[in-house]
Amino acid sequence: MAGESEAARHPYAPTDLELPGYVPISLPLTTILGVYVLSSLFITLLLWTLSGRLPKKTKIERLLMCWWIFTGLTHIVLEGYFVFSPEFYKDGSYLAEVWKEYSKGDSRYATRDSAIVSLEGLTAVLEGPACILAVYAIATDKSYSYVLQFAISLGQLYGTFMYYITALLDGDNFSSSPIYYYLYYVLLNSFWILIPSLIAIRCWKKICIAMSSESHKKTKVP
Amino acid sequence: MAGESEAARHPYAPTDLELPGYVPISLPLTTILGVYVLSSLFITLLLWTLSGRLPKKTKIERLLMCWWIFTGLTHIVLEGYFVFSPEFYKDGSYLAEVWKEYSKGDSRYATRDSAIVSLEGLTAVLEGPACILAVYAIATDKSYSYVLQFAISLGQLYGTFMYYITALLDGDNFSSSPIYYYLYYVLLNSFWILIPSLIAIRCWKKICIAMSSESHKKTKVP
Repeated sequence: MAGESEAARHPYAPTDLELPGYVPISLPLTTILGVYVLSSLFITLLLWTLSGRLPKKTKIERLLMCWWIFTGLTHIVLEGYFVFSPEFYKDGSYLAEVWKEYSKGDSRYATRDSAIVSLEGLTAVLEGPACILAVYAIATDKSYSYVLQFAISLGQLYGTFMYYITALLDGDNFSSSPIYYYLYYVLLNSFWILIPSLIAIRCWKKICIAMSSESHKKTKVP
Repeated sequence: MAGESEAARHPYAPTDLELPGYVPISLPLTTILGVYVLSSLFITLLLWTLSGRLPKKTKIERLLMCWWIFTGLTHIVLEGYFVFSPEFYKDGSYLAEVWKEYSKGDSRYATRDSAIVSLEGLTAVLEGPACILAVYAIATDKSYSYVLQFAISLGQLYGTFMYYITALLDGDNFSSSPIYYYLYYVLLNSFWILIPSLIAIRCWKKICIAMSSESHKKTKVP
């Protein structure tokens, strides 16, 4: 699957990376991706169904709840595992296989680049639980719902920007092949630019409308 | 000033850092700090005075305008210079002297660590101009004033967290001596945790109050 670089001890770029004790990927790609996609779909559909029973929830609010549970669990489970497993490449568990596979698109995960660990740490420890709180906030119409979603989206955007900029500055040479580069590194991460941008813009607008009528109220009632 | 490490070609830690073409600091410390402190004080006092002539501005709003102009110009001028001057350590200009001095507290600036350049890039290019916009937004009571200040403060917090976490992961050994470590690296940066935290909490509360009355309005007028 990793093409020519499979001949090396590990499939990552550059090939002279030192990963002593590396345990090759044993699960097939269909299993690695399948478990993630299917469990994400299951959770998302479950939340879509449950949120349909809540009173007065718009389709956008229900979609947002699905997004927040999906991205929150991805942050906590997948990225949380990575952050606290410095030697995942020696391991054979499912979560280790995910990161061994993903490292083909960005070997900085296998080599534990400090910028990657830092931003994944903030994502897993702060943003992950905040995403779950966002689901609850939307479900129960909390007044902090928009400002919370705005905050998490900005955090995700900041993290993804840092992710790409550090890679570019360090030579952008961490992919085993163009297919992993475009599929894992570019495509997968691009969702965490696109969706947080849309949510941040929506929250910004909603907050501005509320602030605007709040200040009108103040002007009228001194 | 840099203690024992002055014996090396450059005063930075670790002493085996390669900085070919390094031009030693020629300005005295009082000049380097003095120009920054005095010009910051001048701009801040100017804005304090001018904002006093605006109608209905509270002292907190005027203080915030002073903070935003100070931190905005620091981001744009000081950090902007650093981001776009990869060889500042070969230069003798005032801004180069600032960074050569600051690098005694964190040599990752001199060696151009990619995490540092990335977060300083985001700070200088996105947050800097946004800070100036925040001054304008407070002055003219824009409805986006709070959400903008909230966004910038979160960006500053994310940047400062990344700054410290990457240093810790990389061994936290970038200071020439304890005095530079505590004065430059810890103390100076701690303001960009303390003040953005206070502002973010204030904005969060203000936004929640507005969102709360907005939703009451909606409930009452269907």
